[in-house]
Amino acid sequence: MRVVVPFAAGRPKTRLADVLDADDRASFARAMLADVLDAVEAAGRQPEVLATAPVDVDVRVTVDERSLTDAVNAVLAETEGPVAVVMADLALATGRVLRRLFGTAGDVVVAPGRGGGTNALVVRHDGFRVDYHGASYLDHLAAAREVGATVAEFDSHRLSTDVDEPADLPEVLLHGEGSAREWLRGAGFRLAVEGGRVGVTRED
Amino acid sequence: MRVVVPFAAGRPKTRLADVLDADDRASFARAMLADVLDAVEAAGRQPEVLATAPVDVDVRVTVDERSLTDAVNAVLAETEGPVAVVMADLALATGRVLRRLFGTAGDVVVAPGRGGGTNALVVRHDGFRVDYHGASYLDHLAAAREVGATVAEFDSHRLSTDVDEPADLPEVLLHGEGSAREWLRGAGFRLAVEGGRVGVTRED
Repeated sequence: MRVVVPFAAGRPKTRLADVLDADDRASFARAMLADVLDAVEAAGRQPEVLATAPVDVDVRVTVDERSLTDAVNAVLAETEGPVAVVMADLALATGRVLRRLFGTAGDVVVAPGRGGGTNALVVRHDGFRVDYHGASYLDHLAAAREVGATVAEFDSHRLSTDVDEPADLPEVLLHGEGSAREWLRGAGFRLAVEGGRVGVTRED
Repeated sequence: MRVVVPFAAGRPKTRLADVLDADDRASFARAMLADVLDAVEAAGRQPEVLATAPVDVDVRVTVDERSLTDAVNAVLAETEGPVAVVMADLALATGRVLRRLFGTAGDVVVAPGRGGGTNALVVRHDGFRVDYHGASYLDHLAAAREVGATVAEFDSHRLSTDVDEPADLPEVLLHGEGSAREWLRGAGFRLAVEGGRVGVTRED
């Protein structure tokens, strides 16, 4: 199984701009990417990065400047056999959960992201193509059924948590096991419990 | 295994006040409770409700006006054998995921909620007690280890999604399979995709 990790090298995580400046966002995004690559390896697979620009990592990198959808569909078209697509901002991913994902039966296995995205996919059907625009989770279920593929939902909090905005940072501090959590702690972020809700504070 | 569903009968979901008035919040909370009870039954168990005031449901209801923590600990103290505690606002719960939860090995099995809460628990250890205050997930892991209990994390997007605030409503529309989703649709709520984020709109 090819395991592809798309990475937007040039665009930092702009929705984190309220809490992290551009350099920090780029650095934090790289820490999350490292965690995802480690988790894929811990699940017994060799990851490769599909990036919009060259990235300095110890695994194979393919540069494709097109949109996420076009770049992933090019991989699906050129590959015989199963392909997994795992997003680079899944800072809670572990070898354990990815092993369970890769082992789940189905022509198309979809792990939804919070908010209706598609955070991880396993594709074992030649006719299936992705479309990451909008609420892609429901679109991917429909697209799989259209080509006659069997579909499995993969139910995981760890994989549903893509780290996009400040409200996602507590999840990294609570459940992260790798360098993204360390990065946040090193940058002074701590869990803060206020009025029954958990957020983060940042120490100087 | 006793399966207890705590329900705050008198307090509607105040964090939804921006999008639902008090009557609607009470009605929506009852729809979610019904879904959770159905899911427990679909998992082959007989649920019981642990409520702060009488509730009209077709299962056993115990009224305990004390705090959630005290009421659940009273159940744990009086029960020989395993107890599961499943929150009443898990509108994405299904028989499938609860069957997997109830079947997970461990003296204490904890399904974290987004934001560090404890959305579902299985307790198979006499010495374990709950404390739902604050980021209870980490506290429950520590408390389990303190009494020498083996601990398992239960990783589920469906169980991590307690429905507390407007940002949780898209999850119900995306993944709900029961009356809470129907309630929202009947009240005019629809998924809305804007700038890459999924929210809800409400039709008149």
